[in-house]
Amino acid sequence: MTISFRFVTFLSDYGYEDEFVGICHGVLKRIAPEVEVIDIGHGIPPQDVEAGALVLGQAVTFMPPAVHVAVVDPRVGTDRRAVVIGTRAGPPLVGPDNGVLWLAAEALGGAVQAHSIEREELLLTPVSRTFQGRDVFMPVAARLALGMPPEDVGPEVPVDSLVRFEMPKPRVDDDHVHGQVVQTDHFGNLQLNVHRQELEDIGVLLGDRLEIRIGGKSHTGLYCLAFAEVPLGRFAVLEDSYRLLSIGMNRGSATRVLQAARGDAVIFARLRDSAR
Amino acid sequence: MTISFRFVTFLSDYGYEDEFVGICHGVLKRIAPEVEVIDIGHGIPPQDVEAGALVLGQAVTFMPPAVHVAVVDPRVGTDRRAVVIGTRAGPPLVGPDNGVLWLAAEALGGAVQAHSIEREELLLTPVSRTFQGRDVFMPVAARLALGMPPEDVGPEVPVDSLVRFEMPKPRVDDDHVHGQVVQTDHFGNLQLNVHRQELEDIGVLLGDRLEIRIGGKSHTGLYCLAFAEVPLGRFAVLEDSYRLLSIGMNRGSATRVLQAARGDAVIFARLRDSAR
Amino acid sequence: MTISFRFVTFLSDYGYEDEFVGICHGVLKRIAPEVEVIDIGHGIPPQDVEAGALVLGQAVTFMPPAVHVAVVDPRVGTDRRAVVIGTRAGPPLVGPDNGVLWLAAEALGGAVQAHSIEREELLLTPVSRTFQGRDVFMPVAARLALGMPPEDVGPEVPVDSLVRFEMPKPRVDDDHVHGQVVQTDHFGNLQLNVHRQELEDIGVLLGDRLEIRIGGKSHTGLYCLAFAEVPLGRFAVLEDSYRLLSIGMNRGSATRVLQAARGDAVIFARLRDSAR
Repeated sequence: MTISFRFVTFLSDYGYEDEFVGICHGVLKRIAPEVEVIDIGHGIPPQDVEAGALVLGQAVTFMPPAVHVAVVDPRVGTDRRAVVIGTRAGPPLVGPDNGVLWLAAEALGGAVQAHSIEREELLLTPVSRTFQGRDVFMPVAARLALGMPPEDVGPEVPVDSLVRFEMPKPRVDDDHVHGQVVQTDHFGNLQLNVHRQELEDIGVLLGDRLEIRIGGKSHTGLYCLAFAEVPLGRFAVLEDSYRLLSIGMNRGSATRVLQAARGDAVIFARLRDSAR
Repeated sequence: MTISFRFVTFLSDYGYEDEFVGICHGVLKRIAPEVEVIDIGHGIPPQDVEAGALVLGQAVTFMPPAVHVAVVDPRVGTDRRAVVIGTRAGPPLVGPDNGVLWLAAEALGGAVQAHSIEREELLLTPVSRTFQGRDVFMPVAARLALGMPPEDVGPEVPVDSLVRFEMPKPRVDDDHVHGQVVQTDHFGNLQLNVHRQELEDIGVLLGDRLEIRIGGKSHTGLYCLAFAEVPLGRFAVLEDSYRLLSIGMNRGSATRVLQAARGDAVIFARLRDSAR
Repeated sequence: MTISFRFVTFLSDYGYEDEFVGICHGVLKRIAPEVEVIDIGHGIPPQDVEAGALVLGQAVTFMPPAVHVAVVDPRVGTDRRAVVIGTRAGPPLVGPDNGVLWLAAEALGGAVQAHSIEREELLLTPVSRTFQGRDVFMPVAARLALGMPPEDVGPEVPVDSLVRFEMPKPRVDDDHVHGQVVQTDHFGNLQLNVHRQELEDIGVLLGDRLEIRIGGKSHTGLYCLAFAEVPLGRFAVLEDSYRLLSIGMNRGSATRVLQAARGDAVIFARLRDSAR
């Protein structure tokens, strides 16, 4: 058997306090000792499927060819399906059918095929109702990496029947952009669902000062290119490394100062006193 | 020299803030660049030998053949022994002789041999009194993985003299089961030392409602198969992925709601109004 | 092309909540699938260049031959230079030119050469202004590991022009040693910039009791070899695994009890009632 994928990537909400991630690595290595795991990350907030979908969708394009496993699975142990999704670009996605794989499938050219994981002899049996990263998803990913075709995991299911997840769209309303926080990070930056284009649509140029309305309050920020362009403790609005706008501070945490969280509405307007 | 073990697994209470884990990886790779490390986890509460013993005992059966290293070592730098334990199943265990290796030895068929690590030329010298994962355990594990026989680390010590650790046993008392919390996890689940058998011994069947007494208070839970079977915010009692009972909540943290911690007593009884 | 370095080590302040570290791994593996990453650690406090410099300086001597990457980069996206530093011992260092690489360069025999990273075709373009671990440092490290000579990254810059970072020096003043906290760790130990020699210079011997002044208060500790030599909850002052003095407690957190942080002044004196 020739190896189809040298790498398996792994994203989850398992955190780092416990042995869950380590056990999944062990299970993979027992089946496929030559295959390497790349941990995209395991800090997804517990059971937050949308956060998992967003992170995986942004991460997969930076990965080498791989089987991508994502386990954020609040309905583990119920009748929710476990699936393998084939993508136009090639790399298969493995995880629960709850939307967590959807943005990654789109980033890889779209889902072209899907199979429900049902063949018991591929799994660690008896399959637990609580830890299917170990019992279901990693054993299947290991075998896919080793060259098993996806149709061997169980019956084909229509791509149309897969649970989808769409990034919420921003709205440009006259001279305001209405967006929302889609992610917060370790540095306290707020990632938004807003692109440079929407700011430009309301006439904002680099170097302009912006009104930022969030959580019922109004703040001022600079539309710029790097956090260090604003004074310490001031807000910067800039295009981040995924080509989405972020609100951050020079050496401070915007998340903490603004008391903001994922899902919060954000409204931008150009401040009239912006010098040109 | 042929490699005896392709993998070294590594469990500790070193945490992730510091460079301790990374330095241990470096030390291993300097001696044995081809050997791979599987991090079982480094989130054991600082110096909590019992938590380390429980996690390692549960994890080793999911690992490929490996040298297993565990470092939870409150008496580091004193006269406590450092040991290599040979197991019936084959994989050797490396760590302090304080019980942290004991349940893993049992899970691997029992300890059949033990040696005290004393040969200085195997170690990073001068051996520090505070960081023996780096100076003692990883260098020894690397050499065992490369094929060095365990007797080369130092004098044999009687298996009977090793420090043991037994999982506390639950007690069935008429129509109550008396257990305790042996572990809490990232999702807020409480893992108990109680098995399905003990609940069945007091006449509890799947679908029954249970009284859960913990911390001087009484709560109600459902004996079921998956967290998602109970309404949001209610307690589920179910067999977890290690075949022990857990108390959890559907999308909530039982640890936080019950203010519970490892060692807390838990009493179960069948609620009389459980419909059959 | 022959591989020059089998390993790339990686230190950052990216933390573990997000996917930043995982994406950097992916980027490396796309360019150099055979090269292995050793994560020294990613728990450096956000944007704390000095903490990064200290940890990297202590860690590199325990690593196998490697390209060492460090990303603690508060001025990312501005005109601060990105550099490759050649060292006398051989392993190159890759990161921002802000001092984070300096102690590692010294630990590797000193900087002998430096180049500014400017050749765009080596990078992930368009290079983001916020995530240059992904776009700049990892792609360059991957290519150096694969054998690309450092001069290919861009123009040579004088070693004299590199930003330096010196460990603050302790001061021996009659019968007192004046030092400071240079690091705190997961176990609550305070690492100081003081060596055994300075304590011996004021006449302190192993087994002596010390006065420890910190944060405007005075405490008592034992100068000893292992944390377990003092009673539970008492302070030990001992040489740590990097040959610097640490203040710790037997199964307690000195950081928490002393409310201490990096940079805090510490004064030691021998207590007169120390028995000899």
